[in-house]
Amino acid sequence: MKLYDFPPAANAQRVRVFLAEKGLEVPTVELNVRDGEQYKEPFASMNPFNCVPFLELDDGTVIAESVSVCRYLEELHPEPSLFGRNAEERAIVDMWNRRIEIDGFMPILHAVRNHVPFFKGRVIPGTRSELPQLPPIVERGKDMLKVLLGRIDPKLAKSEFIAGPAISIADITGYFMMNMAKALEMDIEGPYPNVYRWHQALSERPSIQNL
Amino acid sequence: MKLYDFPPAANAQRVRVFLAEKGLEVPTVELNVRDGEQYKEPFASMNPFNCVPFLELDDGTVIAESVSVCRYLEELHPEPSLFGRNAEERAIVDMWNRRIEIDGFMPILHAVRNHVPFFKGRVIPGTRSELPQLPPIVERGKDMLKVLLGRIDPKLAKSEFIAGPAISIADITGYFMMNMAKALEMDIEGPYPNVYRWHQALSERPSIQNL
Repeated sequence: MKLYDFPPAANAQRVRVFLAEKGLEVPTVELNVRDGEQYKEPFASMNPFNCVPFLELDDGTVIAESVSVCRYLEELHPEPSLFGRNAEERAIVDMWNRRIEIDGFMPILHAVRNHVPFFKGRVIPGTRSELPQLPPIVERGKDMLKVLLGRIDPKLAKSEFIAGPAISIADITGYFMMNMAKALEMDIEGPYPNVYRWHQALSERPSIQNL
Repeated sequence: MKLYDFPPAANAQRVRVFLAEKGLEVPTVELNVRDGEQYKEPFASMNPFNCVPFLELDDGTVIAESVSVCRYLEELHPEPSLFGRNAEERAIVDMWNRRIEIDGFMPILHAVRNHVPFFKGRVIPGTRSELPQLPPIVERGKDMLKVLLGRIDPKLAKSEFIAGPAISIADITGYFMMNMAKALEMDIEGPYPNVYRWHQALSERPSIQNL
């Protein structure tokens, strides 16, 4: 199998951290997404959604989508588990990963795309268009992150990681959500001290230090 | 186990259709979300995200999030499969379900919340606040749906269902995305004939007819 990615992209980094936490190595091909290499063949046919990362299996099947790639690799290599060790644990990890993605990661991704000048002309991931950056999307993304952090801060007062005592894919998703939020200059440390501490602790892990 | 839901909510209907396609029955408690019953105890403590549906297991564990509930029930009752029958199929189904959720279902959910007068004061799911409805979020949601439909229409010309020859959770997610989009008065039949036909065919299935 072969992983296609672009090291600076948050979604590519999610998979890289996942691999490091699992102790896995996968041959990797870097696509220069900044120069639009994902729109050229053979990459455009491999992943018509024009995003990285994606995983090409030996039979040519392509799995795009960062979490789907991680989920597939977890099935092949269950230990150490980052998706849960039984049906109930897997449901809880999936729930938290989804909560963080739906209520925070995606709204913040769109906030950043609609705020940072670098993303002008590319406000929708995997597209190039004349659609403008829209400031209300930035404000609503920040509002949504505040709601989410207000809900997970009390949880992180009692639990080392998002879904329980062990690190999971939900923490990796959350780590990169907080990293993206840095571009929006929000105060995290004051109102969400447990989120702040959790994010700091994650940033010291070798999987993230060695990115 | 016990499922807590509210029949008119799209996310509750996703789980109901999933159960019907699997031939499963789960005891169900209806929470009147319109009157804010999810903010009252014991429900607020069971699911601090104040949404339906959620599944309470016999040991008191709560699995919130519609897809996490479905994924858990699929593990207990693998046949007929709606998440794929092996690691590779599961990765492909998960990829398509995520594509549809991230690129369409969620942007359209936010577009509807920011457009339909009924959702004033509840623009973020699971919250009540004074945050205003923002028209640019409606426009961007429609733009994102057009990008997604432009990508899946050619696929649905060659494939009966989103992830291949059999129905999957990705079709259920897609069905409700298209239903929500009706509130935005977009032309689907003209520009996306295969999406239109696929949606019509899904709407005739007993699982949806009997909702």
